[in-house]
Formats: sequence, structure tokens, C-alpha cells
Amino acid sequence: MSKQLRVGMVGSGYMGKAHAIAYRNAMAAFEISNQSLICDMLADATPELAKQKAAELGFHRSTGDWKELVADPQIDVVDICAPNFLHKDIALAAIASGKHVYSEKPLALSAADAKLMTEAAEAAGVKTLVGFNYIKNPTVQFIKQLIERGELGDIVHFRGVFNEDYLADAAVPFSWRLQKEFAGTGSLNDLGSHLVQLALHLVGPISALCADLKIVHQQRPLEASATNSMAKGQVENDDQAHMMVRFSNGAQGTLETSRVAWGRKNGLSFELTGTKGSVVFDQESLSEFSLYLSGEQPDVQGFKRVLVGPEHPDYAAFCVSAGHGLGFNDMKAVEIRDLYEGIVHGQALWPDFRAAAQVNVILDDVLKSYEGNAWVKVEQYDGDQ
Amino acid sequence: MSKQLRVGMVGSGYMGKAHAIAYRNAMAAFEISNQSLICDMLADATPELAKQKAAELGFHRSTGDWKELVADPQIDVVDICAPNFLHKDIALAAIASGKHVYSEKPLALSAADAKLMTEAAEAAGVKTLVGFNYIKNPTVQFIKQLIERGELGDIVHFRGVFNEDYLADAAVPFSWRLQKEFAGTGSLNDLGSHLVQLALHLVGPISALCADLKIVHQQRPLEASATNSMAKGQVENDDQAHMMVRFSNGAQGTLETSRVAWGRKNGLSFELTGTKGSVVFDQESLSEFSLYLSGEQPDVQGFKRVLVGPEHPDYAAFCVSAGHGLGFNDMKAVEIRDLYEGIVHGQALWPDFRAAAQVNVILDDVLKSYEGNAWVKVEQYDGDQ
Amino acid sequence: MSKQLRVGMVGSGYMGKAHAIAYRNAMAAFEISNQSLICDMLADATPELAKQKAAELGFHRSTGDWKELVADPQIDVVDICAPNFLHKDIALAAIASGKHVYSEKPLALSAADAKLMTEAAEAAGVKTLVGFNYIKNPTVQFIKQLIERGELGDIVHFRGVFNEDYLADAAVPFSWRLQKEFAGTGSLNDLGSHLVQLALHLVGPISALCADLKIVHQQRPLEASATNSMAKGQVENDDQAHMMVRFSNGAQGTLETSRVAWGRKNGLSFELTGTKGSVVFDQESLSEFSLYLSGEQPDVQGFKRVLVGPEHPDYAAFCVSAGHGLGFNDMKAVEIRDLYEGIVHGQALWPDFRAAAQVNVILDDVLKSYEGNAWVKVEQYDGDQ
Amino acid sequence: MSKQLRVGMVGSGYMGKAHAIAYRNAMAAFEISNQSLICDMLADATPELAKQKAAELGFHRSTGDWKELVADPQIDVVDICAPNFLHKDIALAAIASGKHVYSEKPLALSAADAKLMTEAAEAAGVKTLVGFNYIKNPTVQFIKQLIERGELGDIVHFRGVFNEDYLADAAVPFSWRLQKEFAGTGSLNDLGSHLVQLALHLVGPISALCADLKIVHQQRPLEASATNSMAKGQVENDDQAHMMVRFSNGAQGTLETSRVAWGRKNGLSFELTGTKGSVVFDQESLSEFSLYLSGEQPDVQGFKRVLVGPEHPDYAAFCVSAGHGLGFNDMKAVEIRDLYEGIVHGQALWPDFRAAAQVNVILDDVLKSYEGNAWVKVEQYDGDQ
Ligand SMILES: NC(=O)C1=CN([C@@H]2O[C@H](COP(=O)(O)OP(=O)(O)OC[C@H]3O[C@@H](n4cnc5c(N)ncnc54)[C@H](O)[C@@H]3O)[C@@H](O)[C@H]2O)C=CC1
Ligand SMILES: NC(=O)C1=CN([C@@H]2O[C@H](COP(=O)(O)OP(=O)(O)OC[C@H]3O[C@@H](n4cnc5c(N)ncnc54)[C@H](O)[C@@H]3O)[C@@H](O)[C@H]2O)C=CC1
Ligand SMILES: NC(=O)C1=CN([C@@H]2O[C@H](COP(=O)(O)OP(=O)(O)OC[C@H]3O[C@@H](n4cnc5c(N)ncnc54)[C@H](O)[C@@H]3O)[C@@H](O)[C@H]2O)C=CC1
Ligand SMILES: NC(=O)C1=CN([C@@H]2O[C@H](COP(=O)(O)OP(=O)(O)OC[C@H]3O[C@@H](n4cnc5c(N)ncnc54)[C@H](O)[C@@H]3O)[C@@H](O)[C@H]2O)C=CC1
Repeated sequence: MSKQLRVGMVGSGYMGKAHAIAYRNAMAAFEISNQSLICDMLADATPELAKQKAAELGFHRSTGDWKELVADPQIDVVDICAPNFLHKDIALAAIASGKHVYSEKPLALSAADAKLMTEAAEAAGVKTLVGFNYIKNPTVQFIKQLIERGELGDIVHFRGVFNEDYLADAAVPFSWRLQKEFAGTGSLNDLGSHLVQLALHLVGPISALCADLKIVHQQRPLEASATNSMAKGQVENDDQAHMMVRFSNGAQGTLETSRVAWGRKNGLSFELTGTKGSVVFDQESLSEFSLYLSGEQPDVQGFKRVLVGPEHPDYAAFCVSAGHGLGFNDMKAVEIRDLYEGIVHGQALWPDFRAAAQVNVILDDVLKSYEGNAWVKVEQYDGDQ
Repeated sequence: MSKQLRVGMVGSGYMGKAHAIAYRNAMAAFEISNQSLICDMLADATPELAKQKAAELGFHRSTGDWKELVADPQIDVVDICAPNFLHKDIALAAIASGKHVYSEKPLALSAADAKLMTEAAEAAGVKTLVGFNYIKNPTVQFIKQLIERGELGDIVHFRGVFNEDYLADAAVPFSWRLQKEFAGTGSLNDLGSHLVQLALHLVGPISALCADLKIVHQQRPLEASATNSMAKGQVENDDQAHMMVRFSNGAQGTLETSRVAWGRKNGLSFELTGTKGSVVFDQESLSEFSLYLSGEQPDVQGFKRVLVGPEHPDYAAFCVSAGHGLGFNDMKAVEIRDLYEGIVHGQALWPDFRAAAQVNVILDDVLKSYEGNAWVKVEQYDGDQ
Repeated sequence: MSKQLRVGMVGSGYMGKAHAIAYRNAMAAFEISNQSLICDMLADATPELAKQKAAELGFHRSTGDWKELVADPQIDVVDICAPNFLHKDIALAAIASGKHVYSEKPLALSAADAKLMTEAAEAAGVKTLVGFNYIKNPTVQFIKQLIERGELGDIVHFRGVFNEDYLADAAVPFSWRLQKEFAGTGSLNDLGSHLVQLALHLVGPISALCADLKIVHQQRPLEASATNSMAKGQVENDDQAHMMVRFSNGAQGTLETSRVAWGRKNGLSFELTGTKGSVVFDQESLSEFSLYLSGEQPDVQGFKRVLVGPEHPDYAAFCVSAGHGLGFNDMKAVEIRDLYEGIVHGQALWPDFRAAAQVNVILDDVLKSYEGNAWVKVEQYDGDQ
Repeated sequence: MSKQLRVGMVGSGYMGKAHAIAYRNAMAAFEISNQSLICDMLADATPELAKQKAAELGFHRSTGDWKELVADPQIDVVDICAPNFLHKDIALAAIASGKHVYSEKPLALSAADAKLMTEAAEAAGVKTLVGFNYIKNPTVQFIKQLIERGELGDIVHFRGVFNEDYLADAAVPFSWRLQKEFAGTGSLNDLGSHLVQLALHLVGPISALCADLKIVHQQRPLEASATNSMAKGQVENDDQAHMMVRFSNGAQGTLETSRVAWGRKNGLSFELTGTKGSVVFDQESLSEFSLYLSGEQPDVQGFKRVLVGPEHPDYAAFCVSAGHGLGFNDMKAVEIRDLYEGIVHGQALWPDFRAAAQVNVILDDVLKSYEGNAWVKVEQYDGDQ
């Protein structure tokens, strides 16, 4: 059964459940049998939790120790849905056991770690994939095709924003997400990593950047459980981040992210300008985009609202009719189809650890730029992507 | 294993695949184990097709004869994804075998048939559910709650439209959909049935209606396969349908549907007006709605764009973060959760055959009104729901 | 000075001021000198009010008696901005004095009155224009051109809505607007007249209709000034009106209007479907429209948001750059340019009394249809428009 | 007649006509008599042009020499609608003649010039106003009030974009606008100046900035009139400009502008985030804004689309009904009302030369930052406004 892929997943929180849904969804949509793609084992923080969640999410086996999962000979790929600070250890152990690795983003808390992980994976010859799911959206895949087909001309500008409001309320309590040790940067790592990856994916390498960061709420209340309810935790990472970027191909861009932007729930949006047209996309309306093509009759020119449909990549697997709308989890299903196809048929996976490490390089450079109040030249770790 | 539900599905086209995806999706999102909900047997037009599709869609067994499926003692519920004209025979046979029935919409080609089916099911004591999935959307579920909570006041107006453009091109060839014998009415049955059900669901019984129908393209080319490529088929049913309705509670409404409305892909939209506020919904942006509540400060009044999130019904099963967007197939997953819960826990299912028969009553009245050029008083088959 | 037009305006309320602004605006935008177009005399309910308003709105002379204005030999055109029930008397007197007449809409309270006025004007050979300003919007003018150019193919459907919320609050007091004697019908006359005129203008004659009306708030409080604050006035005319229409050219349509539709402020919107494309327009975004043209490449098809600009009719008089936006009063300026050009250069004015009388014919038929619960065949008073 | 204001306008192009319309519009909307506000004299490049345009635009007198206008004893205020490079000379001469000055934006080609002009005006005690009209929009005025009322909390972020596409087509010929000598910077001066002024107006002083510029089309064809049609002109100023800014009050921001952004016609948009809410505005839909207020019931939270109406500043002068929409020229009418009221009643005008000079200071700093590849601390020329 060379075409079988046995998955061991670590973590069953927000993303763990999204992956669980997506495995099922991918099998049905892309017609992969449940003999071929097997949700085999789930590891979580405790054996009890792991057992309960495995039952709920449809995994056959469970463990309270991810090391056991990673070492299990039956497992082909380790799917890391654990918090960011655990990605490195789990991935390195998985690689050491010869497993393929599918990790949630951001790959690591620093470029150094990400490079270490990349080199380990490449040395071991295992396949890697990082969960930058927004580029799997049929809408975004199609925008990429429009660029490649040259329909927008040369790209001259990219403005990207990824804003949410999950920490906009100053009363949201202190947590590990606000500590450098566990989370690294703040909105930058959490949301900005997606945005940077998207920019690289659509426009190409970033050669230089200049950045600015800001903590809006300096302190936050400790959880009620804490002894002194007046006590405050000191926030250590950015609520807002900005960067101006220069792409290698000459395009300019700005990237912004915030976790305190009232009203934005999944506010990943971008506007791409080329010498022949423009594209606008907003993840809060993920199944459509706006397209302006120059050269039309002047009195009927305008941005066209294109609803995603079976003419666009991967949509037809979900629905034969246009405009019926895909959801967030459907993007993950496409990602898992990629994972399955890539490993089972030995094809390249994208974005792999090296591509994801390039994102970490840039995130590190943002900090460097902010601390130095200066432009930073970006290392091209991800060579000739 | 009293909590097990074994499904036998008939048909594996557009809806068959949507159901197959939704079974998987429902299991993962609502944490129903695959011991409890089993995609057991698929029937299709031929044994070969059935076999191939069963493998693709993840059904264990297959048959080229739906009568075999319906009679199979292992099957608990028959899921009808076959063309409209087959619903009646399959459902009646399933009921005769004591199976629960889950049928795609519209329930039947006529009110008479729908009543027959309803009475058979009720006499046999089996559960029934009809695939009017749009009311399963968390957004629409929440709009229903807003009405019930009284936040919109008394509903005084409903304007509903369900337009698509799948037959807008006059060159789309003739088919069974355009023949009364196989399809019954045209856009009315196909799209209008959803709209009528939605209106009944949100506003309540319709007491009277006046309708108008129109065939826009009288003839269509026969398929290339036909001997004479100049030959045309005569279209027998409506491309466009209108109705003015009066609800029992005093509200007024207009319902419109078209299959020749250029640019509309899943153009189910409505505007609900109450004495305290208004709601606007558009299925092409299915994960949001607009809400106007009176009584706010005049200078900041306006329609609010509410993104669906975990505060709304059933969303949290799919995603813990607001605004991440559900897709068309996710509505079907909610429907299947209802099916599973309803049958396994012996609860009421909605909309059942009786409710769906009321839709057929109204669709028949539309024809009657059109033919008589007059208002028609609507029979309340679906009593006082 | 044959090219001079001296205006006598009656009424200085909402529309009186809008006209005053528009006279100035038209002169500047269309470069008509203030020697050629003269705001000469204002009549209002009392001499004091007329005097004060004349000063504020820039009229040279004033009178408390519109009969004086109408009889004044200096006046070339009488501009009627008085309440509906006065239109007839003022217009007939003006015509009797040989004046051209520019009247606000609706022309009259009944088709009979409107016909009388039309025939008087035609017999006298004076020019007439009625203030159906929405068709003067460059956006709407251009949509009309698109239809005439055949870019939308044959029009097969028109859905028009004109909803506002000025009486949505049940606490808005009773007034003459709610009495048949002074206002005729309710939302139908006030808003519906515009919508009917727009439908006729864009799609052509309506041959038959079937309508429904509704009073949502049966009673309203009398003004505080009334002796008994608990007293209620009985509302005599429609809060909501519906009609299904059949156009002579075979197109179908629905027209709806409401004055109790929470959240709508100038909610005149329509969707036009043709055999080659569709147009969507919403007056609350008056400087743009959406256009879907069939026949484009399937993967980039969609509704295009076209911003009005100098390529469209009359826009360039206001601004040389596209997308800068016109306002409500700018439409009136176009109307006044038409008035000036039409009278001074002896060209046809549109819509004239006969065209406006056709609207009144239809409004009467709506009542007839509602009272008879039946379809009504529409008289084509406005012959071969 | 102390309350009289006699205007001498220089230039009758795009803005000259907009001003001419606005004078008339302001008189009608704000009920200023044409005895009080007088369009007296027009200067243009030649006597012939001036004469013709004066007739068209409704000015009594004309001259081919702006120096004559500036020196004319009858003129109270000089309105400069001439190209940017002439602002300085005309303004200084007007000031020297003791005239008030109303200048189009940007005030000058450099901060040094702008300061010179400011100091001359202040020394002479004349009033000044600069045509940054976007802040006169009732919508934007109201957003300013929302901020001042504290309804958005502390402002923590401002993202502003002003994009148009008037030079997006590489075939648009070379012109003076592309030369530093005549135009200064490119999109920055033309569009960016508005955006900077808006940011200062809404959020407050900018203390530091870091910027990036780009010429997208390095060369452009010379006009056909040129001898050699293959000849190209070298573009000297920015097609695109970016800046990251830090406001004195701690807020962060990004400002971007482009004249090569396909599809944008008057694409001035911003998103303001505060600790209690957010506002989104887009000039292409100038009569509305979106408002998110935190603290509402979670299941009905969302951005509210507020249509501007009589509850908002200055709207009621144009229309008594909400949602009827103002246009670009109406903003200029508000500006002219300010001019009239400010001069005639001796009140402060905003933004005056000093405020506009602060914009020039920042525009200079953008160049400095770009050339030095570094953050620049901004001089607070405009003290503590
Ligand atoms: N692709 C995307 O759009 C998103 C990606 N993510 C990423 O997914 C990852 C997980 O984030 P969430 O699911 O939001 O976190 P979460 O806190 O909801 O879930 C984390 C899971 O990891 C488990 N876990 C913690 N320590 C463990 C240990 N020592 N051994 C085994 N399991 C352990 C927890 O019990 C929990 O099940 C992060 O890297 C995050 O950045 C998160 C949200 C969205
Ligand atoms: N809920 C919704 O939104 C939608 C509902 N529908 C409904 O779903 C039903 C099926 O429609 P589609 O899937 O679009 O049709 P389809 O033509 O795509 O699929 C029909 C399926 O039935 C099978 N079939 C035909 N004759 C059969 C026979 N004698 N025995 C067994 N199988 C047979 C076909 O082979 C095919 O697999 C219809 O009632 C339709 O109204 C369709 C689309 C959307
Ligand atoms: N084209 C459009 O979009 C609109 C048209 N209208 C139409 O404009 C007309 C006037 O409506 P509004 O301006 O809203 O009413 P309004 O009540 O604001 O103004 C009516 C004016 O007529 C004056 N008037 C009343 N009796 C008079 C008399 N005997 N002699 C002289 N003047 C008298 C009043 O003093 C007042 O100045 C109506 O026919 C209405 O349908 C109104 C609003 C919008
Ligand atoms: N506030 C706003 O939104 C806008 C402001 N502007 C500003 O308005 C000013 C004028 O720009 P446009 O009207 O677009 O230019 P334009 O080129 O359309 O008009 C310039 C006018 O100045 C006249 N002129 C040139 N040299 C002259 C001289 N020596 N003496 C007298 N008149 C002379 C020209 O004949 C022409 O009438 C500029 O400062 C520009 O930045 C322009 C467009 C929009």
C-alpha cells in the first residue's frame, strides 16, 4: 500500500480541530479513500485529553506524549498543531525519526531555529509543509495565475493588511501570547507571518524593508485565578506592526498587521497593482475578488467582482456551481490534499520549511529594523523560489 | 448500538457529492464518530457508476438499483439525491420499508404527490427531512432568532429573490429540466422552492398569492448529438417567476426567481422589514448579514454588517474565531447533524415532508394563479407550525 | 433677449430650496449666464414667508399669492414646488396665462387631473416638464444609453424598489400626507411615482399590472398641538405598495415601494436583466452602477462597479475627473439645464405632462387592481413615447 | 456694506470651474445673497481666455494679467486656482496688496516657500485658507466630531491611501507635472498633500516619519506635437509614495499615494482605529462611512454603514433628507461658506497657510527620508493647533 499516508497530529485546539475537519473534507472533496489517508494518532498535553479528543476528532489512537507519536513506526507524517514554541522540538524529533512534517505557522520563533529545522529536514530528505493556508484558497490561487499569465502586467505595488481585534479590548487578560519567550513577536508572528508569506508568494522576494512596531496596551490584567486581581502583566510584544518593503522585481509594498483593530475578524486583505490592472482581495469575503483590467472601453471600466467558481483552481472539487462559496476550513482541505498528493506522489510541497524559514528571516529583520530605526537588507535564504 | 445511523444514498451527482462531503464534514465538526454515522450504500443509475462513485465518495457498498438499497435491512435512512421526478417513487418505497427519508428538494413535482408522500411517512411513523439547506446557515438561523426574540418588531415585509444565470445563455441546449414531465415548473421548482420555504420559515404561513411566470427563451437547440443540429426543443416551463404574497400575520411580500438573470450565481437574497428594524441577506456572501436596528442615536444609525461567528448558532463547531467564513457545504453539514441528531435522539426534524409539502402546495398555487390571472387563497396543509 | 428665461417659483420648502440650489448650480456647471436664466419671483403661503425665502434663495421678487406670480407678465416659466394637491390649480392657471410649466412630481392626484392638465398645456402650446429627477442622473442616463445601444440585449426583467423609512417610526405624527384628500395615495404617490416613471423610461410601456397595498401603521398620534394628546389620526393611504407588471415589449417586472422600511434613506434601486447582460443601480450610491456583460472569459466574469465620470452624459459639466461623485442636487441641475435648453431652444422636454400623466394612469390602475384584487390592463395615454 | 466679499479668481481650469460652481452653490445652500458674495474678476493666462471664461463662469470682469487682479482695489480675496508653481508669487503679491488669500493646495513647492508665504500673510494680518476640501465633507467633519467626542477612544492607528490612475497608462505623454521645477514631487504633492493634511486634521501632529518613493514609468512619450515622436521625456518625480508615521499622541500610521493605481479614480480612503472603535471612509463613496463601536452585544456587532444626513455637519444646508448624497463640488461649497463666514465675520479659517505649510514641511521630510533612507524627526511648524 505505497499510496497510504498515516497521520500523527500533535495538538487538538483551534487548529487541531480545523485539521481534523479538513482531513475528512479533503477525502470527500478530492475523493481520497479512508484507506489512503488515515487519521491515525493524536498527541495532546495529557493522555486523558488526547484520548477524549481522538474520539471526538476521529483519530484511532492517542497519546499524552508527543515523543511517542513522533517515534511511532506507523506514522508517516507528523502534523504539528501545537503552540509555536513547541514547533521546533517536535519537528526536529519527527525529522530525526524520518517522518515527513506538516507544521502550523509560523514555522519557528526565530530565523535561526527555522533554518536549523529546514536544514535538518533537507538533510533527512523528508517532505515538509507549513500551514500558510490562505494561499490555498482557490481565489488566491487564481490571483496567482492571473499574475503568472501576465494579465496584470508587471506588479508595481502590493499593499497587505492583516488585522484582527482579538486583543482590542484592554480587558482581555494577560497570557503566554504576550510573552516573547513563548510567542516571539505578537501580531507580527501570529498574523504578519501569513501576510509576509502571501506577499512573497504573489510578488516574489523582498530585498529590503523598514519597519515599525507598537504595543498599544502596555499592561493587561492577570487572570482572575491570580491572587491579586489588581495585578497586571507586562505585554512584551507588538499589538501593531508596519513595514515598507522593496521587492527584488522592483515593486514596492506596505504590510501592516494589528491584533487590536476593532471590527476586523479575519481581516487579511490586499491590493495588488500592476502595469495592466489591479486586484483587491479581502479574506472576510474569501470567495470573491475584485479585478480591474485596463484597456476596456472607458465608459464601462471598473472593478469587477468575480465570484469564485469551477473555472478557478480546486473549486470544482467542492461544488460544480459558481458563487456557492467556500469556507475557511475548505482552504485547509486543499492544503491537506497537497500534503497527501505531495508525499504519496513524491511531488514538491509548497510552502516547505525553507520557504517558511524565509518568512522567519523577514520577521527577524522587522525587529532588527525597528530596533535600529533603519532599513534592513533581507537575506535570500529561500534562494530561487 | 442504538445510536448508529446507516445511510443509503441514491444519486451521486451535484448533490450526491455535496452530501458525501457533508457527512464527513458533519462528523468532524460535530464530533460524531464514524461508528455512529455510516455512509453505507450508494445507489446510482448503473452498477458500474454506483461502484465507482461509492469508492470515490466513501460509501462501503453500492448498487445499480435503488430498490435494492431501499429494501436493504442494514439501511436506516434513505438519502435521495436523484432527480426530482424520482423523489416520489424512491421515498414511497423507502417508507414502505420502514426507512427514514432524507430527500433533496423540491419534495415532489406536485402538491398531490407531496401530500401522498407526507401521509405515507406519517402513517409509517418514519422521520423525514427535506434538503432546504439555506435555513441551516448559521447566519440565517440567527436571523430567525432575531425575529423570534422580537428584535425586529412585527415583520411587515419580506422581499425575496433567488436568481441564477445557468440558462441565461440562449445557446444552452434543451434538456429534461425544461420539460414539465420531468421537472415540473422551471426556475420556480428549482430555485423558487427554496425561496418559498425560506419565506415560510422566517415569516410564517402565506395565506394568499398572485403570480406571474415567463419563458424568456421559448426554444433551445437540441444537443449536438441530435441528428438535425438546427432542430430546437420547445421550453415548457418558466425561466422567471414572480409572486406577491400575503402572510397570515399581516406581512406582505414579493418573491421572485429567475434562471436567466445574468451575473447571479447563487443569488438568493432577501430583505426583511419589521416595525423595529430590518435585515438584509445575500447568499453570495453567506457568512454575513446586514442589520438595521431603529432607536439608535440618529447620527450613527445605519445597516451593520455582521460577520457570522461563534456567537451565532452552530458556527463554533466549524471555527472558534468569528469572520472566518463558512461555505455552501458547511450548511449541508448542519443539515446532516440535524438528521443524525433527530433520528438518533428521536427529535423533530425540520423541514419535514409536511413542511415541504406546504411548499409544493404554494408552487401549485403559483401555477393556478398564473393560469387564472388571479389571486389564490393558499391551503394551510402545514397546519400551525 | 430671446434667450432669456424668467422663472417664477411657487413653494420654498424641501424642493423649493433644491430648485434654488439647482438654478445656481446649473448656471455655473452648464455655463448659462445669470442674464439668461433669472430667478425672478417666489410665491409662498404668506407674503412674509415669501419675502424672507426670496432673499435667502436668491429670487428678486416675492408674493404671498401664487395667482399673482402666475399672472405676472415677466414670468416665462412657473416652477411648482408646492404640495401635490396644489399642482393642478397652479398649473392650469399658469397655462391659462400662457406660461411654460415645470412641476414637481407627481403631476396630479389622479389620472383624470393629469390628463386635464396635459390637454390644457398641449392646447395652449406651452412647454411642460415634471421633476422626475432620478432619470437626469448621469449614471441613469448612461444606463439608458447602454439599453439603447443594445449592450444588454432585449430587456427581460426589471425589479425596482423605492423604499424610505420616514414613517417607519409609529410615533411620527399624523399629517396631511396620510390623507387621501391632500396626498392621494401614500408611498405610491410619493416614491412609487418616481419608480414607475423610471421603469417606463428605461424599459418602455407597461401593458398590464397587478398590485397590492398595505397600511402598516393604521393610526398615528395627532400633533402635540392637538387638544387631546391621546387622540389618533386614521391613516388613509398605503405605507407599502407592490406591483407585478408586464411591459409591452414582453419584459416582466416588479415594483415595490415603502415609506416604513427601516434603514432606507433614499432607497431607490433597480436591477435590469437583458438577454446579454444586467445592470444594478442604487440611488444611495448614486454615482456608480454595476454592470454584468455576458460573453467575457468565464474566469474573470462578474459585476463591474463603474464609477460615473466624464465619459458619461453631463458629468463633465461638473467635474473633469471620474469618480469624484455627484450629489442629489446635481441631478436637479441637469433637469434645470434641460428646462432652460428646451424652452430657450424650443426643443422637446422630457418627461412632459403627457409622460407624467401616464405615470398617474398607472398609479390609478394600481388602486384599481388592489381594490379589484385583479390584473388591470393599462391605458396607453402616452402613446408612442 | 461691511458684509460683502468680492472675489478675484486666478485660473479657470479644473479647479477654477469647481470654485465657480461652488460659489453659486454656497450662496444657494447657505443662503448668502449675491450682494454679499460677489464673483468679481477672473484672471487667466491671456485676456481672451480670461474674458471668455469670465462669461462662462459668471465673473463680472476679467484680465489676462493676475497682477492687475491682485492690485485691484475692489477685490477682497484672491482665489488662486493656478498651477502649483504660481501659488507663491500670486499669494505674496496678494498679501502685499492687503488681500485675503484662498489658495488651492499644495500651498507651495517647498516648505521654505510655504513658510515665507505664511509669515508674509501673518505679518500683513490677512486671512488665508487652503483648498484641502476633503475635510469639508460633512462625512469627514462628523468623523472628526466622533474623535473629539471620544467615541473612538484614543486613536492608535491611521491608515490612509490616496490613489488614482491618471498616469497608470504608460502612454500618457510627458508634461510639466512630471518635472520637479514645475510640480515639485509627483503623486506626493498632488494627492499626498491631501492625505497628509487629513491625517494631521484627524489624528494630530506627526512627530516622525520614514518614507519611500518610486517612479514606475521612468520615461514617457513627448506630445505628438514634438518633432521626434520617438522622443521620450524623463520623469522626475514619484509615481508612488509611502510613509510610516508616528503621531505625537502615540498613534501609528501609514500613508500611501499613487497616480498609477489602475482602477482608482478618487481613491482617498482611510481606516482609523481607536481603543473603543474604528472608522472606515472611502472618498469614492463620499456620502457614507463605516463605523465599528465596541461594547455592543457580540452577536450583532459589525461595521455600520452610516449614510450622511441632516444630523451631520452642514448636510442640512443641501438637503433635508438623509442619504440623498452630496457630490465633490458640495465639499467646495462648504469650503467657500467657511471662506465667506471667516472673512466677513472675522473668524479663524482652517486650514490656513500655517497649517498648509506644516503639510509642506512633511512633504519635504518625505523626500529627505527617502534620500537618506532613514527616519526623520518632523519640525512642528504648525505649533499646537
Ligand atoms: N493557519 C492558521 O490560520 C492558524 C494557525 N494557527 C497556528 O496553530 C498552532 C496552534 O494554535 P492554536 O490551535 O490556536 O492553539 P490552541 O491553544 O487552540 O491549541 C494548542 C493545542 O496544543 C496542545 N498542546 C499544548 N502543549 C502540548 C504538548 N506539550 N504536547 C502536546 N500537545 C500540546 C494543546 O493541548 C492544544 O490542544 C500555532 O502554531 C498557531 O500559530 C492558529 C490559528 C490559525
Ligand atoms: N439543496 C440544494 O441546494 C440543491 C438541491 N438539488 C436537488 O438535488 C437533486 C439532484 O440534483 P443534482 O444533484 O443537481 O442532479 P444530478 O443530475 O447532478 O445528479 C443526479 C444523480 O442521480 C442519479 N440518478 C439518475 N437516475 C437514477 C436512477 N434511476 N437510480 C439511481 N440514481 C439515478 C444520476 O446518475 C446522478 O448521480 C434534485 O432533486 C435537485 O433539485 C440540486 C442542486 C442544489
Ligand atoms: N423630485 C423629488 O425627488 C421630490 C419631489 N417632491 C415634490 O415636491 C413638492 C413639494 O414637496 P416638499 O418640498 O417636500 O414640500 P414642503 O412642505 O417642504 O414645501 C412646500 C412648500 O409649498 C408652500 N406652499 C404651501 N401652500 C402654498 C400656497 N397655497 N401657495 C404657495 N406656496 C404654498 C409651503 O409654504 C412650502 O414652502 C411635492 O409635489 C413633492 O411631491 C418632494 C420631495 C422630493
Ligand atoms: N482641491 C483639489 O481637490 C484639487 C486641487 N487642484 C489644485 O488646483 C490648482 C490648479 O489645478 P488645475 O485646476 O487642475 O489646473 P488646470 O491646468 O486645469 O488649470 C490651471 C488654470 O490656471 C491658468 N493659468 C496658468 N498660468 C496662468 C497665469 N500665468 N496666469 C493666470 N492663469 C494662469 C490656466 O490657464 C488654467 O485656467 C493646482 O494647485 C492643483 O494642485 C487640482 C485638482 C484638484
